[in-house]
Amino acid sequence: MSGLIVTNPPRADRAVADALGGFGVATVHEAQGRSGLLGSHINPVQRGVRISGNAVTATVAPGDNTMIGVAVEQCGEGDVLVVSPTAPCDMGYFGDLLATSLKARGVRGLIIEAGVRDVADLNEMGFPVWSKAVSAEGTVKGTLGDVNVPISIAGRIVSPGDVIVADDDGVVVVARLRAAEVLAASHAREEKEALARSRYEAGEIALDVNNMRPLLERAGARYVDYADWVKETDS
Amino acid sequence: MSGLIVTNPPRADRAVADALGGFGVATVHEAQGRSGLLGSHINPVQRGVRISGNAVTATVAPGDNTMIGVAVEQCGEGDVLVVSPTAPCDMGYFGDLLATSLKARGVRGLIIEAGVRDVADLNEMGFPVWSKAVSAEGTVKGTLGDVNVPISIAGRIVSPGDVIVADDDGVVVVARLRAAEVLAASHAREEKEALARSRYEAGEIALDVNNMRPLLERAGARYVDYADWVKETDS
Amino acid sequence: MSGLIVTNPPRADRAVADALGGFGVATVHEAQGRSGLLGSHINPVQRGVRISGNAVTATVAPGDNTMIGVAVEQCGEGDVLVVSPTAPCDMGYFGDLLATSLKARGVRGLIIEAGVRDVADLNEMGFPVWSKAVSAEGTVKGTLGDVNVPISIAGRIVSPGDVIVADDDGVVVVARLRAAEVLAASHAREEKEALARSRYEAGEIALDVNNMRPLLERAGARYVDYADWVKETDS
Amino acid sequence: MSGLIVTNPPRADRAVADALGGFGVATVHEAQGRSGLLGSHINPVQRGVRISGNAVTATVAPGDNTMIGVAVEQCGEGDVLVVSPTAPCDMGYFGDLLATSLKARGVRGLIIEAGVRDVADLNEMGFPVWSKAVSAEGTVKGTLGDVNVPISIAGRIVSPGDVIVADDDGVVVVARLRAAEVLAASHAREEKEALARSRYEAGEIALDVNNMRPLLERAGARYVDYADWVKETDS
Amino acid sequence: MSGLIVTNPPRADRAVADALGGFGVATVHEAQGRSGLLGSHINPVQRGVRISGNAVTATVAPGDNTMIGVAVEQCGEGDVLVVSPTAPCDMGYFGDLLATSLKARGVRGLIIEAGVRDVADLNEMGFPVWSKAVSAEGTVKGTLGDVNVPISIAGRIVSPGDVIVADDDGVVVVARLRAAEVLAASHAREEKEALARSRYEAGEIALDVNNMRPLLERAGARYVDYADWVKETDS
Amino acid sequence: MSGLIVTNPPRADRAVADALGGFGVATVHEAQGRSGLLGSHINPVQRGVRISGNAVTATVAPGDNTMIGVAVEQCGEGDVLVVSPTAPCDMGYFGDLLATSLKARGVRGLIIEAGVRDVADLNEMGFPVWSKAVSAEGTVKGTLGDVNVPISIAGRIVSPGDVIVADDDGVVVVARLRAAEVLAASHAREEKEALARSRYEAGEIALDVNNMRPLLERAGARYVDYADWVKETDS
Repeated sequence: MSGLIVTNPPRADRAVADALGGFGVATVHEAQGRSGLLGSHINPVQRGVRISGNAVTATVAPGDNTMIGVAVEQCGEGDVLVVSPTAPCDMGYFGDLLATSLKARGVRGLIIEAGVRDVADLNEMGFPVWSKAVSAEGTVKGTLGDVNVPISIAGRIVSPGDVIVADDDGVVVVARLRAAEVLAASHAREEKEALARSRYEAGEIALDVNNMRPLLERAGARYVDYADWVKETDS
Repeated sequence: MSGLIVTNPPRADRAVADALGGFGVATVHEAQGRSGLLGSHINPVQRGVRISGNAVTATVAPGDNTMIGVAVEQCGEGDVLVVSPTAPCDMGYFGDLLATSLKARGVRGLIIEAGVRDVADLNEMGFPVWSKAVSAEGTVKGTLGDVNVPISIAGRIVSPGDVIVADDDGVVVVARLRAAEVLAASHAREEKEALARSRYEAGEIALDVNNMRPLLERAGARYVDYADWVKETDS
Repeated sequence: MSGLIVTNPPRADRAVADALGGFGVATVHEAQGRSGLLGSHINPVQRGVRISGNAVTATVAPGDNTMIGVAVEQCGEGDVLVVSPTAPCDMGYFGDLLATSLKARGVRGLIIEAGVRDVADLNEMGFPVWSKAVSAEGTVKGTLGDVNVPISIAGRIVSPGDVIVADDDGVVVVARLRAAEVLAASHAREEKEALARSRYEAGEIALDVNNMRPLLERAGARYVDYADWVKETDS
Repeated sequence: MSGLIVTNPPRADRAVADALGGFGVATVHEAQGRSGLLGSHINPVQRGVRISGNAVTATVAPGDNTMIGVAVEQCGEGDVLVVSPTAPCDMGYFGDLLATSLKARGVRGLIIEAGVRDVADLNEMGFPVWSKAVSAEGTVKGTLGDVNVPISIAGRIVSPGDVIVADDDGVVVVARLRAAEVLAASHAREEKEALARSRYEAGEIALDVNNMRPLLERAGARYVDYADWVKETDS
Repeated sequence: MSGLIVTNPPRADRAVADALGGFGVATVHEAQGRSGLLGSHINPVQRGVRISGNAVTATVAPGDNTMIGVAVEQCGEGDVLVVSPTAPCDMGYFGDLLATSLKARGVRGLIIEAGVRDVADLNEMGFPVWSKAVSAEGTVKGTLGDVNVPISIAGRIVSPGDVIVADDDGVVVVARLRAAEVLAASHAREEKEALARSRYEAGEIALDVNNMRPLLERAGARYVDYADWVKETDS
Repeated sequence: MSGLIVTNPPRADRAVADALGGFGVATVHEAQGRSGLLGSHINPVQRGVRISGNAVTATVAPGDNTMIGVAVEQCGEGDVLVVSPTAPCDMGYFGDLLATSLKARGVRGLIIEAGVRDVADLNEMGFPVWSKAVSAEGTVKGTLGDVNVPISIAGRIVSPGDVIVADDDGVVVVARLRAAEVLAASHAREEKEALARSRYEAGEIALDVNNMRPLLERAGARYVDYADWVKETDS
């Protein structure tokens, strides 16, 4: 409610942000040590889409989308707008008009822990959105929030300039200063997965690919034939 | 549980109901003063469909779809069946057989705050449904509800003969006596939106299109460059 | 947490399991006396798919997918893997690598009361999954569960060798020893439904097809014309 | 959002409303044919309290409690204020100051499908509240709703002047014109229950008190000794 | 829906069941290897109560409490009635009359994954209940379920004769054949906890009491002074 | 998962933190501009308690309470431990042993967006807890999180050394550097509320105390007598 609008925040290197988008959310999340994933209540409005870009952040009051209008002006080519309400609210903060405006500025997509509307139009114009809800319930204007300060969204902290990657699996945030390191780790992980995939395709199983049998033995796993087990439990 | 079945309720003008269907749920909802939207837990079973029509209402007992059978007889060409359980229940009240029956009568679709089943069949036959859940759990018969009385569904009151508009954004109800007025307001709103859309496409932003800068100033919004902001918060 | 892995459990007759897959979940559920349906919070990841097969069961610790790796080894051609966590958890237990492994073994699909990830890959490779959530949040390894014991999943008991049928309407389990009987009942029900469908298409309604008018009369249903009803309630 | 404030609505007879408060919510709900119960997500803030009174209704915008202030002026001795938001919102619309004001006017309590705050103060001053949530999140002022029109709240329609009964079991609404009839039915039901209670205390069971054995037999209930049942299922 | 009523199931040793009740749910749950805990959506209606006893199980149809009436007859001194609906339902299946009946038979309490009512009466008469919801919404009679077969409730399988322990922390089920073993393990655990408690009271901390420091070191934990950490993240 | 443990973070002035505890959560939340309130799914385990203190923060892996053990060592007199899981988890991370340890160190209470257990013991020993759930489901040890870094909990960012105030209304966080300013604003707000309270007690209403009538007029509120309104809507 403070009405603070921070301008010109640093952004992660564009080439790095774009390259992270070449990996899936699951890979990036693993590559940075299983961290940064937004809660699974944030779902893609469109299926089969993957984006990445630099976060422009905004908080909005419940039922009031004033600060989205303000945030648009701080967004540019290659950005992703990330919006969180200051109290839970599923109303439709965002529709085809704001999408038209963001698209005209080269913004990659919207992540919002609230509702959106005009879903058929968003699909038609191809503007990617990840949201908590779909609702035609319109919002009012008049109460302030903040733009480009660190925000809490879906269980994670997103700061302006962080890299956002989003696809069918959800949304992950990569801290700006760690982006290059996470990109390298994503490459490494993908190579390792490709190797594992070929072994699985050839019929090997996780117990061997991941060398899990010693772990099972130490933990006390016990194999019993069904016929013997029935006798055991029948007493 | 009273078993009251009201016959021959008045209906909104068919041409008006059809014309309202030409607008999206979001537009109609705005045009009638941001009212009448059913809760966002009522979701379309099929994507990309839009319908409108006159409401035939029914209440059903939990786990008992007797009154849907009764309501079918009160439905005709251009109607939308609107069903609410008297206690929350996600069971599958409605499937391909009842859909076949409604379709044969020219009914436009079903809105139900409960579960439906035979979803693959409903998709194939193209009968539009908005529901709270999908569940194959069948219901019994034997307990009464009411037909064509005002009902409470998903946070709204729907009376028989009201106009229902439904699409990807959800479901909105327009009171029968206000239908013509809301139609006119929808036309006006669409024209205004078309104008705004062309301005957004041309690169203008909401702060200017909606003349929001004076509001921001009165409310105390403050722009700070990132470098200055870091100094402020670092003390 | 006991680490028990039961091997070589009996399985339902393959031909019967396959034939049950020819009917929808709704039909099988009705045919076995409206029982065995898993809760409607288990949703298909892909639309328009129907599978059937013999259950291989596993329990997993929260946030730990060790036992899925173990269960894979117990799965073969025509099986369906059924997994339940010992405490509620929406993390991504399963992704494209495990799917590759199951597919290579001829497994029909996965039912899991938890989260899965790599959804775009699962769609592309055509491996069917019904899950509680989608989440890229990876799991760890180290804590045991059980394989091929009776498990509680989404409100039902599933034993190894039971038949699983899954489609857009959800998931139903048929007890191994009742599979042949339920298959026969499914045939009977489908024939009855086909007959009813043709009557509905011809314009008959449920009140007559199901002979419901006497039930309504006994229960005290009362038809009132709208004009009369307005007078009644206006006093 | 229309800003309509209806003054001087009719109220149910005070003596009848008070007498209904002598019965529990469960009894009144049964006595009027199992109808009128608000959804079980409306919970008492205080335990062990029972109230009754005439409804004064209000709708409020999400996050905006303007119309509660307006409704207070329409409330008098023996009334119960009933409030529903036009879109779901759990913010704290009501606290100790408004409670002080309502108490000073002789209002019996508040029913709200939203959040309240100052719970410790409400307890101390003994002002009874049934709400959907507890939240200290304050609301703004500026957007209108309606007062004393029929509203949809927690799945029911409440009209001004209807009787509200609320206790640990929840909240039930009795239509104004049916209040006397429901009061009589409540008396009858209580007498019947008292009789049943004495039979249960004496050791009789529901199968006999309610004469359920013939129903069971018709429905095909089958008693099997455990030893025989184990043999049946063991094949 | 099968209407099977199994009579005379075996029960765990009464002395063992009673002794298990001397330990908390948390202790018993740990003592049997962190298994058997019902989901945390089953809450105590009364605070500060702890019970134990032998399970009598029942399934009920949605909105129909016929089989609770049937199950009462199978309950005796020292039993706990455990009830699960065949589809999710929060209606009030159980109130003061059935409680009176169970109390007269020496039953210890009720566990139900559905709603109960007459809460004020239940409190007054001191009949302990753990339920999913409180609702005055009454049920009908007419549809069958089963009594004394294994049921799935709140994520666990409960068989007739298993031991139920319930308190403020929730509800845990102990398999009949393992009851004595779990009792011994509960004793052992409690002794160990008492020892740990005295060390904590004396100011020792978990890192030392549980010898966790080597684990931390192996896992790569890193201690950094705040002043140094600020420098690290400020680049 | 990084295993970072920051030591010796700055803390807000103890006297200020204590003084903030003298005000309710609702007052402090308002006094800092309606910000900082944790989501209403964090509930007090005990009623009627109010605490304040300096935050020591920790993140924990799902189902693993290793880092609570680590965080205890960083806690001292006047602190409040604030814990958030890296993925949603309702298991019982915390019970009477850890409470004994924290109490011995002078810690004021625990805020956790997860489950706790041993509730009866916590009540008896008077250690205050605000949690998302109650569950006896125990956790394992082995996976790291972080201690004393900024965390996202229930929709808010909490940094080590921030002031936490918690009572029946929920939990609010006050940024360390703003604590003194918010304390002053809380005093001012309380004085204003006391004045308003006396006016409400004297029978004045919010429309006048808050000077709302001009706002209503501008917004288009319209008073209509019930008799006239019935005529309007009856056409």
